[in-house]
Amino acid sequence: MIIVLEPNTPEKEVQNLITEVKQNGVEVHRSDGQSYTILGLVGDTSKVQESPILSNKWVHNLVHIQEPYKRANKIFKPEATIIEVAGHKIGGDAIVVMAGPCSVEGKDAVIEHAKAVKEAGAHFLRAGAYKPRSSPYSFQGLGKEGIEYMLEAKKETGLPIVTEIMSIGTLDEFKDVDIIQVGARNMQNFALLKALGKTDKPILLKRGLSSTIEEWLMSAEYILAEGNPNVILCERGIRTFENYTRNTLDVSAVPMVKRLSHLPIIVDPSHAAGLWWMVDSLSKASIAAGADGLIIEVHPDPAHALSDGAQTIKPQQFAKLMIEMDKIAKVLERHVI
Amino acid sequence: MIIVLEPNTPEKEVQNLITEVKQNGVEVHRSDGQSYTILGLVGDTSKVQESPILSNKWVHNLVHIQEPYKRANKIFKPEATIIEVAGHKIGGDAIVVMAGPCSVEGKDAVIEHAKAVKEAGAHFLRAGAYKPRSSPYSFQGLGKEGIEYMLEAKKETGLPIVTEIMSIGTLDEFKDVDIIQVGARNMQNFALLKALGKTDKPILLKRGLSSTIEEWLMSAEYILAEGNPNVILCERGIRTFENYTRNTLDVSAVPMVKRLSHLPIIVDPSHAAGLWWMVDSLSKASIAAGADGLIIEVHPDPAHALSDGAQTIKPQQFAKLMIEMDKIAKVLERHVI
Amino acid sequence: MIIVLEPNTPEKEVQNLITEVKQNGVEVHRSDGQSYTILGLVGDTSKVQESPILSNKWVHNLVHIQEPYKRANKIFKPEATIIEVAGHKIGGDAIVVMAGPCSVEGKDAVIEHAKAVKEAGAHFLRAGAYKPRSSPYSFQGLGKEGIEYMLEAKKETGLPIVTEIMSIGTLDEFKDVDIIQVGARNMQNFALLKALGKTDKPILLKRGLSSTIEEWLMSAEYILAEGNPNVILCERGIRTFENYTRNTLDVSAVPMVKRLSHLPIIVDPSHAAGLWWMVDSLSKASIAAGADGLIIEVHPDPAHALSDGAQTIKPQQFAKLMIEMDKIAKVLERHVI
Amino acid sequence: MIIVLEPNTPEKEVQNLITEVKQNGVEVHRSDGQSYTILGLVGDTSKVQESPILSNKWVHNLVHIQEPYKRANKIFKPEATIIEVAGHKIGGDAIVVMAGPCSVEGKDAVIEHAKAVKEAGAHFLRAGAYKPRSSPYSFQGLGKEGIEYMLEAKKETGLPIVTEIMSIGTLDEFKDVDIIQVGARNMQNFALLKALGKTDKPILLKRGLSSTIEEWLMSAEYILAEGNPNVILCERGIRTFENYTRNTLDVSAVPMVKRLSHLPIIVDPSHAAGLWWMVDSLSKASIAAGADGLIIEVHPDPAHALSDGAQTIKPQQFAKLMIEMDKIAKVLERHVI
Repeated sequence: MIIVLEPNTPEKEVQNLITEVKQNGVEVHRSDGQSYTILGLVGDTSKVQESPILSNKWVHNLVHIQEPYKRANKIFKPEATIIEVAGHKIGGDAIVVMAGPCSVEGKDAVIEHAKAVKEAGAHFLRAGAYKPRSSPYSFQGLGKEGIEYMLEAKKETGLPIVTEIMSIGTLDEFKDVDIIQVGARNMQNFALLKALGKTDKPILLKRGLSSTIEEWLMSAEYILAEGNPNVILCERGIRTFENYTRNTLDVSAVPMVKRLSHLPIIVDPSHAAGLWWMVDSLSKASIAAGADGLIIEVHPDPAHALSDGAQTIKPQQFAKLMIEMDKIAKVLERHVI
Repeated sequence: MIIVLEPNTPEKEVQNLITEVKQNGVEVHRSDGQSYTILGLVGDTSKVQESPILSNKWVHNLVHIQEPYKRANKIFKPEATIIEVAGHKIGGDAIVVMAGPCSVEGKDAVIEHAKAVKEAGAHFLRAGAYKPRSSPYSFQGLGKEGIEYMLEAKKETGLPIVTEIMSIGTLDEFKDVDIIQVGARNMQNFALLKALGKTDKPILLKRGLSSTIEEWLMSAEYILAEGNPNVILCERGIRTFENYTRNTLDVSAVPMVKRLSHLPIIVDPSHAAGLWWMVDSLSKASIAAGADGLIIEVHPDPAHALSDGAQTIKPQQFAKLMIEMDKIAKVLERHVI
Repeated sequence: MIIVLEPNTPEKEVQNLITEVKQNGVEVHRSDGQSYTILGLVGDTSKVQESPILSNKWVHNLVHIQEPYKRANKIFKPEATIIEVAGHKIGGDAIVVMAGPCSVEGKDAVIEHAKAVKEAGAHFLRAGAYKPRSSPYSFQGLGKEGIEYMLEAKKETGLPIVTEIMSIGTLDEFKDVDIIQVGARNMQNFALLKALGKTDKPILLKRGLSSTIEEWLMSAEYILAEGNPNVILCERGIRTFENYTRNTLDVSAVPMVKRLSHLPIIVDPSHAAGLWWMVDSLSKASIAAGADGLIIEVHPDPAHALSDGAQTIKPQQFAKLMIEMDKIAKVLERHVI
Repeated sequence: MIIVLEPNTPEKEVQNLITEVKQNGVEVHRSDGQSYTILGLVGDTSKVQESPILSNKWVHNLVHIQEPYKRANKIFKPEATIIEVAGHKIGGDAIVVMAGPCSVEGKDAVIEHAKAVKEAGAHFLRAGAYKPRSSPYSFQGLGKEGIEYMLEAKKETGLPIVTEIMSIGTLDEFKDVDIIQVGARNMQNFALLKALGKTDKPILLKRGLSSTIEEWLMSAEYILAEGNPNVILCERGIRTFENYTRNTLDVSAVPMVKRLSHLPIIVDPSHAAGLWWMVDSLSKASIAAGADGLIIEVHPDPAHALSDGAQTIKPQQFAKLMIEMDKIAKVLERHVI
C-alpha cells in the first residue's frame, strides 16, 4: 500500500500520519519526490484501516499494490484447483459442458430435456428452479418442486445437476444438488455468500453484470474465507453500451482469471449475448481462449420454452457444436468429448 | 408491444405468428412496410409471453411501448406519493435530511453522533449496523447490537432511524426501525424485496451500481406488488469510467423519476462521489434539481470513523450546509429547515 | 511513478531494471515487501519511457503518482484562469450564459434567434454552422455561410459568438468567431487540437462521450502545450447505461475540475439529457454545483428547428430560467444577470 | 419508424401530427391501444425529420424499426464484400494477418521488422507513422518520413502496408499506402471519413472506444456514401469497467457484424487487452468466432520498442501463434497459412 501526500504537506502532518500508520504493525518507507512525498507501507497491510488515511486532508491518493484477495490468489496457491463433482474434474484437461433448459418446466419436461442433452454429450444438467426475473409479473420458477424434478431427471439419466439459489432460507432444498449456482445479481449478496461458504458444496459463482474481475474474486473470497474451497467462476457477459446483444462476453476474463487465480473458470455463452444464433461462435471462442467449461441453454422447442427462448439452442445444434468444440479443444491439447 | 419481422418473411410464417400471439388475448394490427412487416399488439400485453416470439427466427426485433412497471408508474397514479414517517412527510414541500455515521461504532458513540446531527438540523439518524463490504476481511458492522444502539440513540434524541438490511433472516431485528434501507448491491435481491413487500415499513431503495432507472423502478415494483406502498427511491451514484470519483452522481435521475413515477426520491451525496469535500456541491445540486431529501454521512472525527471516513463530513460543515441548502430550496419554493 | 515487481523476481532482474530506469535521470527508491518488491522513481519522471518497463515480464504493475497534465494542473498554477472575451470574464464571479439554436438555419433566422436570446439575457450567441451528425444523410449544417450569418447576427445584436469547428482546413473561416468549440467526438482529434493550440482564440473544449476527466484535461494540455492558454472546459453529459436520457450529466465534474485545474468549466444541459423539459433542473443543478457558465439550446419554434428540437427550450422558458438561476447563483455569492 | 403518443393526447393533436408527418411522403398506420396511441410510418422514412416529432410534447417516444445504415447493410447487399489488396482477398476463406511494430522507429528498423514478420507468415506490414497519443509529451511518430520508410520496407519484402492517418491535410502522403487505417479516436471524425470516402483506397476503420456497433456501421456508411466501397472493420476492444485489461475485446462483434453487414471484419488483439501475454488467447478466440483477419503488434525487442511494448509479442511467439491459429481456422474450414 502506498500513500501519496499532497504537495506542501507540513512536516508535522507527515510525521503524525507515519506514527498513526505504524500502529497497524507495518513499516513505512518514505520517499520525497519533486512535488509529492510518498509513504510505502511494508509488511502485512491487510489490517491497515484505510478510513483514517483517506479522510486525512493531506492525503492525495492511496494506491494498492497487492491484490485484496488472498485465498483466491494464485500467488499464494500456484497450482490450479481441480474440483471433482460426480466423477468430473472441473479445471483439468477435460472441458466440462453443462446444458439444459432455462427453467424447469415440469417433471416430464425436465427428464426429457435431460435425456436430450445427455445424448448430445452434456456432462451436467442445468436448469432453473428459482428464477431471478427483473419483473415481479414474470414466471418466477417452480421453486422447491423444480429441484425435486431435477433430482428425478438425475436419477433417470445419471447427469449431475446445477441450479441457482436465491435465498439463504432455501438452502436445505439444495442438499442433493451437485453444484449450487449464484446468479449475477447476487454476486455481492454477501449474506448468501457467507452461508454458502459454510457448506462444502461446489459453488458456481457468476460474474456480476458490471463487476470487475477483482470484485468477482473478492466475492469468491467470501466463500473461500468461510472454509469452502470449491468455487467455480462463470463469465456470463458484462453490461456495455452495445445493445444489439443483451450483454457482452468478456472473453479476456478467461486468460486473466487463469493468471490471477487458481480457480477454474467456465463460460455461459447463452446469457452472454442473449441470442441463440450466437451461441455457436461464442462457445468456440471461449474454448479457444482457454475456458474450463461451458454452461449452455438447450431446449427441444425454444419457441415454447417458459423463459429465455431467444438465447436457447436445440439439441441437434448442441450435438453438432459439441463435436466442433472438441476439435478446437484438441488444438489446445484438451478435449470436450 | 411491436413485433418487427425479418425482410421476406414467408406469409405463412406471418400468419402463424399472428395466430400464436392472439392466443394471449390481444389484437394484432399489421403494417406492411418497404422492407419490414410490423405487428402492433394492442390490448393488455402484460401477459404476452416474449420467449416464443424472440426465439422465432423470422422475428427481427421486439419493441416495448409501455413501461413495464405499473404500480410505480405515474400514468396509473398521477398524484405524488407522500410517505409519512414519525411526523415527517417525505415527498412533500419539506426536504428531509437523514444524517449520521457510516457505521454504528458503539452505544455511546452513536448516541453522541445522533445528538450532533440533531443539533445541526437533521431529521433522521442514519447509520449502518449491517455493512456490505467488498472484502470479507473488512469490518462487517455490529449487527443486531448496532440496531439496538440506534434505538437507544432514538430514545435519547427523538430522531427516527434509518438502517440497512442485508438478509431476510434478520427482518425481525428491524421491527422498531423507522425506515429500512436496501443497499445498491441488493437492489435486485428479489427474495429480499418480496419479503420487504410483505411488511408495511417504509423502504429506502438505493439504485444499483449500474442499473437503469427502469430496472430500479422494477425493483420498487417488486415491493409494491406485494402490497407495501411505502417506497422511497435513493440515487447514490452510478458506476462510470470516471475514477477520480468513486461513483458518478446521476443528478438527472431526480427529474426523470419525478416524471415517470409518483414515488419520492432522495440523494446520497456521500456515496455518490466518495469524497467528503464534494458533499457540499453535490448536496446543493441535488436540491436544485428537485430532490425530496438527502442522506449524508456525518461524523465528528472522520479520521477515526470505522468506515468510509473519506466521504464523511463533520457536524459543523453539515450545519453550515443545512443553512445553505435551505436557501437554495427556497428558490424552488421548498424548505430544508 | 512506482514499479511493482512480480513475486520472486530474481535479484539480477531487479538490478537490470534499476540500471535501465536510472538512465532516464531519475533516482530509484527500493522497498522489499512481503510478496512484492517496489521501486519508487523520484525526480522528473516525465521522460521515463514506460514501454520498456511494461514489456518487462518481471513487472507486475506500474502506478502513476503524479497527474500527467502539467499546464492544466492547479498544482503548477493555483490561481483560477479568467478568460476575457468581448468584455465577459469567463471563470470569475459572473456566470456566463451562451444560448441559441442548435443549427444556423439562415441569415434572417439566426438574427431573429440572436435577438430573442439577447432579450432573455444571454451573454453569447451559440449556433452550429458545421454539424457533426452520426448519419451522413442528416443535415450537415450551412458551413462557411452559417458562420457568415452568425457574424451578421453579432453585428445586429452585439452578442459575441460561439460555434464548432470540425476540420483544420476550415480554420480561416473562424477568424472572427469569438469562441471556437471543439465537439465531444473530436475531443481526441489531436491534429485539430494542435492546430487550435497555435491560435490565440478561446477554445470551448467539450468532454468526450466516455472520456475520463484526466483524458479531458490531457486534451486541454494539447492546446495549452502549443501556447494557447485560453481553454474553457464544457461538461456535456457522458455515456452511461441509462437510456431514458441521451447522456448523463456528470455534475461532479464541476467541483472536480475546479479542484484539479485552474481552467474555467461550463455545462451544456441541453445535450446532457437530450430532453427540453430537463434543461431547467440540470441548469439549476449546475449553477448550484459551481459551474462558471452554461451553453443552452434555445429556439422560438423547437418543433421546426432543423436539428435537436427535442432538447431545445423556447425564449420565454429561457428568460424565466435566467431569473431563477440568478437567485441560486446569489446563494453562492455569484450572479447570472 | 413508430411514434408513441402520450396517454390522453387530444384528438386534435393526433390529427395535427399525422398531417405534419404525412408531408414527408409516408403513410401513417394508426393503432389505438389501452393507454397509448401508436402511429406507424410506412414508406421511405429516411427523409422524415425527427426534430419536429421529438420536440412535440405529446410524443412519448420515437422508435426506429429499420437500421439507419443502408450501404453497409446486409439486407440491401446480401453477398459478402471481398476486398482485394495486393493479391490478398480480405473477407474470403483465407484469414489475413497484418503484423509489425507499434511505431515506425527508423528506416533500417522497419525493414528488419518487416522481414521478421514476413518470415513468420504475416501477409501485411503494419506500423504507425502518425501516432495518436493521449499525452502531447509522448512520442508522436515519425510522420511523413515514417511512411517513406514503410514503403522502403515494402520494396524490400513485398509486404503491402497498413498505416494510420490522423488528418486530412496529410492524405497525399498515403497515395502508395495499401490500406489506410482510421484509429478508434477518429471513428467519428466525420470530415476525415468524408475525405477518405472520396478516395478508392481500402480503409481499415477501427471501432471507437465506447461506440456501439450501429454507430460504427454509420461511420462506415460515411465512407461508403461518398463512393468508396472498400471498408474493412476492425474490432480493437471497447472501454468497460474492467481495469486489469486496457480495453475489453468484444468478440461477439465478429458474428454480429457478419449478420448485419456484408463488410469484412478483423480483430486487433494487441490493443484489445494491452497485454502481450494475452495476445495468444485473444487471437485464437477471434479466429474461432469467425474473424476475417488479425492485426497484431510484433517487435523483436518489445522492451526497447518506442511505444506500446506492453502489448507486443516477439516474432518467434508470433510464428508459433500463426501455426496454432491455422489449426483452429481449419476447424472452421478456413486457413491462415
